[in-house]
Amino acid sequence: MGRVATRSMHLLDLIARKRDGGRLTPDEWRAFADDYAADRIPDYQVAALLMAVFFRGLDDEEGFALMEGMLNSGGRLDFTGLGKPVIDKHSTGGVGDKVSIPLAPLVAVCGLAVPMMSGRGLGHTGGTLDKLESIPGFNTRLSLTEAKAQVERLGCALIGQTGEIAPADKKLYALRDATATVEAIPLIAASIMSKKLAEGLNGLVLDVKTGAGAFMPELDRALTLAKTMVAIGERCGCPTVALMTSMHHPLGVACGNALEIEESLEVLRGGGPADTREVTLALGAEMLVLGRVTRDTGEARVLLESALADGRALEMFRRIVEAQGGDPRVIDDPKGVLPQAREQAVITAPRAGVVQSVAPRTIGRGIITLGGGRLTMEDTVDPSVGFHILTRPGQHVTRGQPISVVYARDASGMAAGKACIADAIQIGDDDVTPPALISHRVTGRGVETF
Amino acid sequence: MGRVATRSMHLLDLIARKRDGGRLTPDEWRAFADDYAADRIPDYQVAALLMAVFFRGLDDEEGFALMEGMLNSGGRLDFTGLGKPVIDKHSTGGVGDKVSIPLAPLVAVCGLAVPMMSGRGLGHTGGTLDKLESIPGFNTRLSLTEAKAQVERLGCALIGQTGEIAPADKKLYALRDATATVEAIPLIAASIMSKKLAEGLNGLVLDVKTGAGAFMPELDRALTLAKTMVAIGERCGCPTVALMTSMHHPLGVACGNALEIEESLEVLRGGGPADTREVTLALGAEMLVLGRVTRDTGEARVLLESALADGRALEMFRRIVEAQGGDPRVIDDPKGVLPQAREQAVITAPRAGVVQSVAPRTIGRGIITLGGGRLTMEDTVDPSVGFHILTRPGQHVTRGQPISVVYARDASGMAAGKACIADAIQIGDDDVTPPALISHRVTGRGVETF
Repeated sequence: MGRVATRSMHLLDLIARKRDGGRLTPDEWRAFADDYAADRIPDYQVAALLMAVFFRGLDDEEGFALMEGMLNSGGRLDFTGLGKPVIDKHSTGGVGDKVSIPLAPLVAVCGLAVPMMSGRGLGHTGGTLDKLESIPGFNTRLSLTEAKAQVERLGCALIGQTGEIAPADKKLYALRDATATVEAIPLIAASIMSKKLAEGLNGLVLDVKTGAGAFMPELDRALTLAKTMVAIGERCGCPTVALMTSMHHPLGVACGNALEIEESLEVLRGGGPADTREVTLALGAEMLVLGRVTRDTGEARVLLESALADGRALEMFRRIVEAQGGDPRVIDDPKGVLPQAREQAVITAPRAGVVQSVAPRTIGRGIITLGGGRLTMEDTVDPSVGFHILTRPGQHVTRGQPISVVYARDASGMAAGKACIADAIQIGDDDVTPPALISHRVTGRGVETF
Repeated sequence: MGRVATRSMHLLDLIARKRDGGRLTPDEWRAFADDYAADRIPDYQVAALLMAVFFRGLDDEEGFALMEGMLNSGGRLDFTGLGKPVIDKHSTGGVGDKVSIPLAPLVAVCGLAVPMMSGRGLGHTGGTLDKLESIPGFNTRLSLTEAKAQVERLGCALIGQTGEIAPADKKLYALRDATATVEAIPLIAASIMSKKLAEGLNGLVLDVKTGAGAFMPELDRALTLAKTMVAIGERCGCPTVALMTSMHHPLGVACGNALEIEESLEVLRGGGPADTREVTLALGAEMLVLGRVTRDTGEARVLLESALADGRALEMFRRIVEAQGGDPRVIDDPKGVLPQAREQAVITAPRAGVVQSVAPRTIGRGIITLGGGRLTMEDTVDPSVGFHILTRPGQHVTRGQPISVVYARDASGMAAGKACIADAIQIGDDDVTPPALISHRVTGRGVETF
């Protein structure tokens, strides 16, 4: 029997053990990540193991060991001697969540080094990389060496997960996505943390979404995910804080790649929708405290607000755009530089009443229908399309009041977009109290309501 | 999005639905089998679906539809107009289970047509094809056309599962084997029945093993498997009977490929170990009743015993060996024709006492260690090696009494074989009552104790 066959038999034992409710040792998980990254074990065995994990879970030791194995399967950034705290933020994703884009330059001008590594949109959630790439020329595909040099020079880089970072996670994530095993909490936690801890961080802030549009809608499961990730971070000596934020409806106004860049620029100019701005400030304040730039979040917010008000944050974004090959004229003339949808139509309320819901998954799937999202990683996206959502659950509207703008590339897209809004925005008679924008704060010491 | 991507997204929905406890429609299962046989869906998605089925099960409709899909993915034998009842037997497998080899020629001379399709050994269980191939020249790789012609001419063919039969099952079985999803009862039932029903049968007898050496050791699970298969057979208009037989210890004396051919020849000469002979007669009697050759199993046994006693069954086996290219001298001079192990040693009881157990899995794994079994389908087997097991649980033995013979190819194999016997055959002081050889009979009307 060859070595591959031996390994394959060994993996069969591991699958059967997990299937029957047993546990794998830390060494077994680390070797698994290593072997998978090196293509020494076949996808089909890994798929079966993942589904067994979906049903049986991983205990803390197992999850940590898998995370370590994935982390160690690739390279890491090392900012030793930089003289600045290296802090990043990660969001579990949602619809209209463009917060990374204003946040990274904002905290960078306040004294943090921010090696922000983001993902692409998939399914109903958008991706920061796709949004950034709607800026003509913007290059998110920096190597680790290039990213490190830019962080050292500017304080910030906005990049994608390179093949150098956690290749085991990269393979595993793609497989989970194709095998309905994405939603397992220990796998999500290990995946996110293996990528983030490869960034050589001194601290990490997590934005864990809850509500219908979140990857993990139920608050209790989202809290478990947050606690699991915080525990992993703390155990690795990377202080980690999670805020639980609302994805009961889309965040902000703009939903769609180029549209979200425009909204990000508004926030960087000191404006923007209140909720986008508030989530940006709350996460930024946690980052500054973790980086010991300020002692508390109150002080931090003063610093952040002044960097927005006086244009330094916007200026930092301009430098990042320039450094990464993007057209810097986007800063002053977004509509002149960003791709514009040919068809645009204002949608008005069909009746007076109270907005009952703005279904985020319906909006997210609507963006896919318009051509601005992905069902598979092979799909290309049209950056110009999307929605402006002009209303919120709980808002009283009059008949004929604008509630949305649809941005489509052609007439059939426009028809689909209009149908999507009619489906997503429900108007009724009952009063509605929208859930808190930020509900909990999770640290190594426990959970506080916000 | 291309057609493959569409199919892949669709399968993702099916995996998620099964994962969450839902059911797939009969059409979805049939299309799944069809698509998998045609390589239109990837192994990793199927592996995830199989593990979800392991946890969530299939209801009767789902299992039947999957079986139908696999059955319809390939060709079938058609014996319409043959003028003889076409009856087969299938065993769920065990250690020392060579019953197919004497049984097929025996019932063929009693008037049945027997298109017996068997498998290879894998893990601790042996396979009829490997045993037959220890006869020099014996060819089990007949096409369906060749097999049909031989059954029409002789009444019997002993063949492997050709690529023509249930290709979806063939692929699925290989994948289950590599992903620890073999043990799911509805998958086992669908797999076995899709192959057997492709043989164009008028009746089927199942030998469902229970006990430590069985594929499915627990009686209740083995009974569920038997009932599931009987229900599928009856629903397809193929009367099906299952006997539950003991695999608490190896069947008969010989365990190992060529050694089991020798024992089969003893049974065909009217001798052989009592248990091998009894299981052969009990299954054969059910086959003759299903084929309406006799009205009851008592009459059937008289017929079977006379065919053994007067040499007609042995003669039929000779004709099968000749027809399939084997050396017919094996009939009269087995030791002169079959490969012989270079090293042979008698093992004696290390103490007086009562045999507590003869662990069948230990023996089965011992055969692999000796080189006579397989861990993966790519391994080749040495037909000469194995064991003679000369004792049974419950037997009183004296110190120095022969309890086994080890057949090995070299000194290191012999050492491993001796260690295996020391491990497998436990002698103690307690009285032991071995379980019944045949415990239950399962038909469309229910379960009877035997």
